[in-house]
Amino acid sequence: MSAPTAPGAAIGILGGGQLGRMLAHAAEQLGFDVHIYTDEEDSPAARVAARAVVADYHDHAALAAFARDVAVVTTEFENVPADAAAALIAAGAVVHPNPRALAIAQDRLEEKRFFAANGLTPAPFAPVETLDELRAALALIGCPAILKTRRLGYDGRGQARLESDRALEYAFAAFNGAPLILEGFCRFEREVSIIAARAADGAFAAYDLCENEHRGGVLARTNVPARCDPAIHVEAAAEARRLMDALDYVGVLTIEFFLMPGGTLIANEMAPRVHNSGHWTIEAALTSQFEQHIRAIAGWPLGATARLCDAEMENLIGEDAARWAALAADPTARLHLYGKREARAGRKMGHVTRLKR
Amino acid sequence: MSAPTAPGAAIGILGGGQLGRMLAHAAEQLGFDVHIYTDEEDSPAARVAARAVVADYHDHAALAAFARDVAVVTTEFENVPADAAAALIAAGAVVHPNPRALAIAQDRLEEKRFFAANGLTPAPFAPVETLDELRAALALIGCPAILKTRRLGYDGRGQARLESDRALEYAFAAFNGAPLILEGFCRFEREVSIIAARAADGAFAAYDLCENEHRGGVLARTNVPARCDPAIHVEAAAEARRLMDALDYVGVLTIEFFLMPGGTLIANEMAPRVHNSGHWTIEAALTSQFEQHIRAIAGWPLGATARLCDAEMENLIGEDAARWAALAADPTARLHLYGKREARAGRKMGHVTRLKR
Repeated sequence: MSAPTAPGAAIGILGGGQLGRMLAHAAEQLGFDVHIYTDEEDSPAARVAARAVVADYHDHAALAAFARDVAVVTTEFENVPADAAAALIAAGAVVHPNPRALAIAQDRLEEKRFFAANGLTPAPFAPVETLDELRAALALIGCPAILKTRRLGYDGRGQARLESDRALEYAFAAFNGAPLILEGFCRFEREVSIIAARAADGAFAAYDLCENEHRGGVLARTNVPARCDPAIHVEAAAEARRLMDALDYVGVLTIEFFLMPGGTLIANEMAPRVHNSGHWTIEAALTSQFEQHIRAIAGWPLGATARLCDAEMENLIGEDAARWAALAADPTARLHLYGKREARAGRKMGHVTRLKR
Repeated sequence: MSAPTAPGAAIGILGGGQLGRMLAHAAEQLGFDVHIYTDEEDSPAARVAARAVVADYHDHAALAAFARDVAVVTTEFENVPADAAAALIAAGAVVHPNPRALAIAQDRLEEKRFFAANGLTPAPFAPVETLDELRAALALIGCPAILKTRRLGYDGRGQARLESDRALEYAFAAFNGAPLILEGFCRFEREVSIIAARAADGAFAAYDLCENEHRGGVLARTNVPARCDPAIHVEAAAEARRLMDALDYVGVLTIEFFLMPGGTLIANEMAPRVHNSGHWTIEAALTSQFEQHIRAIAGWPLGATARLCDAEMENLIGEDAARWAALAADPTARLHLYGKREARAGRKMGHVTRLKR
């Protein structure tokens, strides 16, 4: 255990998106400076930070220079190249989450194996590298099933749903030889997520379970608390704690689950970071997920995660953001816009939180 | 009425202190970029903004260049030189609050006259430019009384308390010939403040009355709601509305009152800006005073000012900020640090809000 990072120090964040922007605001509220490292010009996070470096994630010299000026480095996306994290650590940086957590979260197969090894229940899965393996896996797992790339999938990208064992060669060919995983389809009752934090001394705190609604593979809406037995919340938090302890994890981590009709939690995926389904914590929890992550990586005590009221978070995706004037006039809507220059289809442009009291 | 400023535009702020920093965060949450203009290097607000200009407030060329890139300019301190506001307007900028509001707030004598002209009750006052005028004013107003500079006083600076009519020449000489005002001392029951907002279309909204405790002339603590008859709140809000209507004011304005034992509100001073006694609104009101000000100056509808719970705000002044580690471990404390490099005596370094539920 090292001493906590004092206010006035700089926190480094890899990534320039909205999660980085909201992390920056939380860090700044606590008196920190924020330095952003991103490969994107004019990014949402860079525009609210004291310093921004625009460079490639493989530029080890730029990474080393970045590391020199900050007390700790964190990430706002899980697909940070492994060599970037290694270069930062070689330059003497403290990096949270640690490279092992990033590596597991970057590979769906490793992630599923890690879940199973720590007593979580993933959907049935099998690695697929050849068409024959795909046929064998589908025979074992059954239809429907989801064929996914092991790496670099998010928001429903890199996925194909298989309804039968016909035309498998076409489905397989569409992935261009990328390493794949076949997952059994879960006829879930609800999708839920848990957002939890772990401090370097092992202290742990979780927020109330979130209930999520996806549309086209992208999170559309989150409600808290999730409609389920309180025992489910306790189980989800216990599972998060096991994963984080196993990783010696520091910071906020999110696990997305399928809640099955009998009450079983199927661990779908983990995000080693703050998460879209936790945005409600800005207004409706004593400590936001963003402040909580900064507290953990700065070696501060974790904040209280108590929920102040029920809440609903709605994502503003693509052209949804054009509704800003109507939302600004809605007294129930707490509006957040991310400062993205272009409203592309499927792009997360902002969100709205509504408190239910 | 012009169209509201769309997200993605830049908001310009004159001043680089903590109020500018918190205004910047609120503007950024709504999707705006923030440009800071300040004469201070490495200021708290500049470090959280997309762009910062460090230049003199009398540098008209720099002001004109600043004005070109922003949709609207606002100020985080009232002592903006009159020629700075004029230069911005000459360069085509929309400036809120308007120069008349700034001019009145910069001169205690004009302010008192403006209060009286709009039906508010100031303490007894008289202008003082000579020792003879001081003697005459003191004979009229009585002791104790407060001798103040008309201009550039804040946080208790530029003031002397007169307990008797002896040694007046020494008290007078200490002000070096600056224009003065003598004010009768009010044996108040409480100090309270109202924070109110007005939109360009005349829409008005006020927060609940705040009860303030000063120490050494500096705000130490604010509690909401103020302990007083609800009719007092209604009266304070009505007085704020009259002032703002008279000024065709756009944005947030604060009035500090003395609440007298009989229930009379003595208008002490006004601040044409967000105010230290309104920091509790970040956590405990539906819309923070900072977001409210940005909404007003951007031509957006005012947000809801409903208070979510009782709250207490404590300022961290000078060495108070050294308590950050203890405050970080206090689950009832919502900690805000302003990123000031040096903890000088009397300097506002941060604040803590506690929700009372």
